[in-house]
Amino acid sequence: MAAEIHNVDDILEAHIPAEELAEVKRILYGSPCGEIEVVDAAAQLSADNDFEIKAYQYNAKPESTRPPRIVRIGLIQNTIAAETTEPIEVQRDAIFAKIAPIIDAAGEMGVNVLCLQEAWPMPFAFCTREKHPWCEFAEDVKTGPSTRFLAAFAKKYDMVIVSPILERDEVHLETIWNTAVVIDHRGEVLGRHRKNHIPRVGDFNESTYYMEPKPLRHEVFETKYGRIGINICYGRHFPLNWQGLALNGAEIVFNPSATVGALSEPMWAIEARNAAIANNYFVGAINRVGTETFPNEFSSGNGKPAHKDFGHFYGSSYIAAPNASRTPGLSRTRDGLLVTEVDLNLSRQVRDLWCLNMTARLDEYGEKISAAASDEFTPERIGK
Amino acid sequence: MAAEIHNVDDILEAHIPAEELAEVKRILYGSPCGEIEVVDAAAQLSADNDFEIKAYQYNAKPESTRPPRIVRIGLIQNTIAAETTEPIEVQRDAIFAKIAPIIDAAGEMGVNVLCLQEAWPMPFAFCTREKHPWCEFAEDVKTGPSTRFLAAFAKKYDMVIVSPILERDEVHLETIWNTAVVIDHRGEVLGRHRKNHIPRVGDFNESTYYMEPKPLRHEVFETKYGRIGINICYGRHFPLNWQGLALNGAEIVFNPSATVGALSEPMWAIEARNAAIANNYFVGAINRVGTETFPNEFSSGNGKPAHKDFGHFYGSSYIAAPNASRTPGLSRTRDGLLVTEVDLNLSRQVRDLWCLNMTARLDEYGEKISAAASDEFTPERIGK
Repeated sequence: MAAEIHNVDDILEAHIPAEELAEVKRILYGSPCGEIEVVDAAAQLSADNDFEIKAYQYNAKPESTRPPRIVRIGLIQNTIAAETTEPIEVQRDAIFAKIAPIIDAAGEMGVNVLCLQEAWPMPFAFCTREKHPWCEFAEDVKTGPSTRFLAAFAKKYDMVIVSPILERDEVHLETIWNTAVVIDHRGEVLGRHRKNHIPRVGDFNESTYYMEPKPLRHEVFETKYGRIGINICYGRHFPLNWQGLALNGAEIVFNPSATVGALSEPMWAIEARNAAIANNYFVGAINRVGTETFPNEFSSGNGKPAHKDFGHFYGSSYIAAPNASRTPGLSRTRDGLLVTEVDLNLSRQVRDLWCLNMTARLDEYGEKISAAASDEFTPERIGK
Repeated sequence: MAAEIHNVDDILEAHIPAEELAEVKRILYGSPCGEIEVVDAAAQLSADNDFEIKAYQYNAKPESTRPPRIVRIGLIQNTIAAETTEPIEVQRDAIFAKIAPIIDAAGEMGVNVLCLQEAWPMPFAFCTREKHPWCEFAEDVKTGPSTRFLAAFAKKYDMVIVSPILERDEVHLETIWNTAVVIDHRGEVLGRHRKNHIPRVGDFNESTYYMEPKPLRHEVFETKYGRIGINICYGRHFPLNWQGLALNGAEIVFNPSATVGALSEPMWAIEARNAAIANNYFVGAINRVGTETFPNEFSSGNGKPAHKDFGHFYGSSYIAAPNASRTPGLSRTRDGLLVTEVDLNLSRQVRDLWCLNMTARLDEYGEKISAAASDEFTPERIGK
């Protein structure tokens, strides 16, 4: 098998002549974002610990009646750090050890709001359909090891951290959920969001482990640095899941994901950007990276022989802006930190320009969606 | 001002080495579509009349219980053909004259379902905010010159034609609408769809000329060649407008548009593809092409001096497939015909794979959207 390419952006930059490159990038990626400096301390951490740092900036127009609302958003993508045959604690601690310097780099870069990838403290073992030992990674939102680990960083760097984990709900029959914990800048748990849409596709046998929460919720978290929403992984395929967060006022939405190339890569550059365009907010799209191998073989429901490795998680985390632009992506193969400084005022400026809110006809759509959900629904068809 | 580039795809093909190009194209555009032959008669028409033809193909897996449902979809994009100072009939007839050989080429290529660009028989004069003479382009759905012109081609080639026009509704106080007429393969008007969302952005002063129809409708047309829906231009920014057509069973959705580079080009490759992914149907995205100049100067609400030309309509029409792939685009600068042969069975195959229908939670979203439309709505926010 050929080696995975590092990054589409690098290939465009390397081969397309400058006079055409600017126009190609405008069409593919929108108006250019600026770059911001990677401070020495962060660069040193990146060199010492072999992860990539990229740092960009989106401005907004100055306004007379509102000051700029500058926020630095951080996204982290990473491979797992120990063999999946190791004891649970060894695997998790190895990930903690590799994540620590990346969070320190985010702190050095002045990141205000940081999000990690989906189920970040563990391998994405749901392909195996085995309950043992993977269910042991599930942990309590408030007292679990991940929250305790991250709370110290949040407090140290005055940083909001979104931590997507496998949750064990002790109060309700020890039920397992796919959950993002929001830790505020003081290191306190502000709340949690549970994944609204659970996949049953390919190796993503997630409904074997956890279900959709009832009721459907699109909580928006009011933080020191703006209003944050979370759309976990497969939820990105549902425009209404993105819209639900917008209706509750989200200004930054994170999409922590774990998805592999053969299944979804051509969608990756589309969905988060469409959400940013349709909802006038910033989106941070995060995908894990690397190939994970499991002790026992498993089949993938695709007619092919059983095997032990998941496909390639292609990373490529990026930020999509409300003005239809996006940053370059992180690597398809390496751990990385993406920092993007944004002015949240851009959202309302784009909203006032396009008037999508004013022309949305929500009252009528609400009735239509409800009607379509009914068992008595008759589609409107003309002809025949 | 630098000349407009012809096409991003051509630039990628020209400069990126083969070993990297395949992977770049997979990531940007999805799994490759095949190419189909441009027959001699069509090639001759294209050479004689200076328009581009591109022709592609998407297959589906063979099924035991359903035969393939092969349909050839055609999209036409074109510049206007006479000065905007000419009398209305001269302008319209000039467009008819340039469109005729392109439709003939579609016929020679065996196109089954053809769609033209938004308001195709006229310049996109809504930038001017002048009512005279532009309102004179409005015409009756059944008896207007455009329908009469196209009906003959529909009958001759056994072809369904979607004709987006400026409609004059004689029955209801001569009201003007932005409307797509669906002409069936016998040359009969099957029905019409009116544009659900009307822009008030930049030079798109369309609500000065026509409004949103009540009630909101997402009619799907049962044709000899499958179920067709239409999402006109600005409606593409609304995921719910796309979804409404899916809920009524659309298999092919056309998005006839007129949009300019500075405003929307980075969105163009995103929105139709996202709709195809989220709704498991084919999308034909069509944009007009060229720069249109008007007799009187007009201002654009952007702080710049009044001027006489609209920006550059960038063409770039393409087909998006339910499997997250897309065809290359037509030119950014030339008239063109895009032919794509598809197997409609692909839609259900992708739907069964991804289960987005099964996991959509429509009952809950209907209630949520209705609640958000209410004056009493309180967003769900946690913290502060």
